[in-house]
Amino acid sequence: MIPARPRDTREHIIKTCRQLFTARGFVSTPISAVIEATGVKKGNLYYYFPSKEALGLAVLEDARDDFFALLEASCVGPDPVERIINSCTVLLQQMEKDNFVGGCLFGNAALEMTEGDTRFAEVLHSVFGHWLARVEECLHEAESLAGCPFSLPVPRLAKLVVAAVEGGIMMSRLNRSRDDFQDCILALQTILRIEEPDRQI
Amino acid sequence: MIPARPRDTREHIIKTCRQLFTARGFVSTPISAVIEATGVKKGNLYYYFPSKEALGLAVLEDARDDFFALLEASCVGPDPVERIINSCTVLLQQMEKDNFVGGCLFGNAALEMTEGDTRFAEVLHSVFGHWLARVEECLHEAESLAGCPFSLPVPRLAKLVVAAVEGGIMMSRLNRSRDDFQDCILALQTILRIEEPDRQI
Repeated sequence: MIPARPRDTREHIIKTCRQLFTARGFVSTPISAVIEATGVKKGNLYYYFPSKEALGLAVLEDARDDFFALLEASCVGPDPVERIINSCTVLLQQMEKDNFVGGCLFGNAALEMTEGDTRFAEVLHSVFGHWLARVEECLHEAESLAGCPFSLPVPRLAKLVVAAVEGGIMMSRLNRSRDDFQDCILALQTILRIEEPDRQI
Repeated sequence: MIPARPRDTREHIIKTCRQLFTARGFVSTPISAVIEATGVKKGNLYYYFPSKEALGLAVLEDARDDFFALLEASCVGPDPVERIINSCTVLLQQMEKDNFVGGCLFGNAALEMTEGDTRFAEVLHSVFGHWLARVEECLHEAESLAGCPFSLPVPRLAKLVVAAVEGGIMMSRLNRSRDDFQDCILALQTILRIEEPDRQI
């Protein structure tokens, strides 16, 4: 059923297409599938989104806003390393709820959307840039608290965290199982533990 | 120019489509693009590959064989951790040669091919299964040589290695730069260093 108000219709199209693009990919989803899934007539669809690219961009921006909100809500707690692990665990729970169909919309988009349209790339850069900055912030705080640095530079360690999450999601999607992504999170949990110098034997 | 011999034609189609599917994705590449890129007539194409799925499977198997050969050739040397890092570095060089267009065919395929066709999933399982087993083998040897275990179980650490490589490739592709993938390899190099117990202070 399509809500009557324009704002709701736009929202309804975006949310439906987000599921659709995550599961099928943006490039390989034809407009006919969008029309079928949303129940919105073609003319009405083009009223809200003049092109498929405009629709793809709106979906990506919607996912970005939700991801930033998820980071805000999950990257919490007194221990900075646990904040990082919390966010990863919330991502895992979200993927699991969707039975790992589609994996990470941003990772998928990075692999298919960036060739032609620079506006897609801009959104993706803001997603990964913000995420990396947040992880780096936590890692710097962990170094301050422990009174010693990690064995590798913080920006490099932050990239490893994000890459391991993205790769873990891909493997979990392939195997339709939480195990791979969870193993990556557990591995990060061990690696990110800094020992205070006087605790080392 | 199309080679005359049937074996060469088949090979020519596979190699051309491998580049095509890596750059554009399998699902979103129409048969018309395959015909244009290969220069092979439609009837001739269907003589070799009765369906797009058969072509996709042949391309994936070809990439798998090359990847296994790459692992054999690059996962060498006296130090087991350096063997892992060598393989990653050879992958980085290969991606760089292609200017990070397309990223990892297996990772992409895992994200788009596995929904419908279980034969694609089988090839991907064999790729990631073989790769993980090879990394685990090296990690076990590293533990034996150091006389002490890693701080986390070998299968978990192996998954982190593979996930970090796949995620690193995705980020490098997004940024069209070797830096992200290289940072992930350097991070792994630090993390995989085991200190012998008597060397710890």
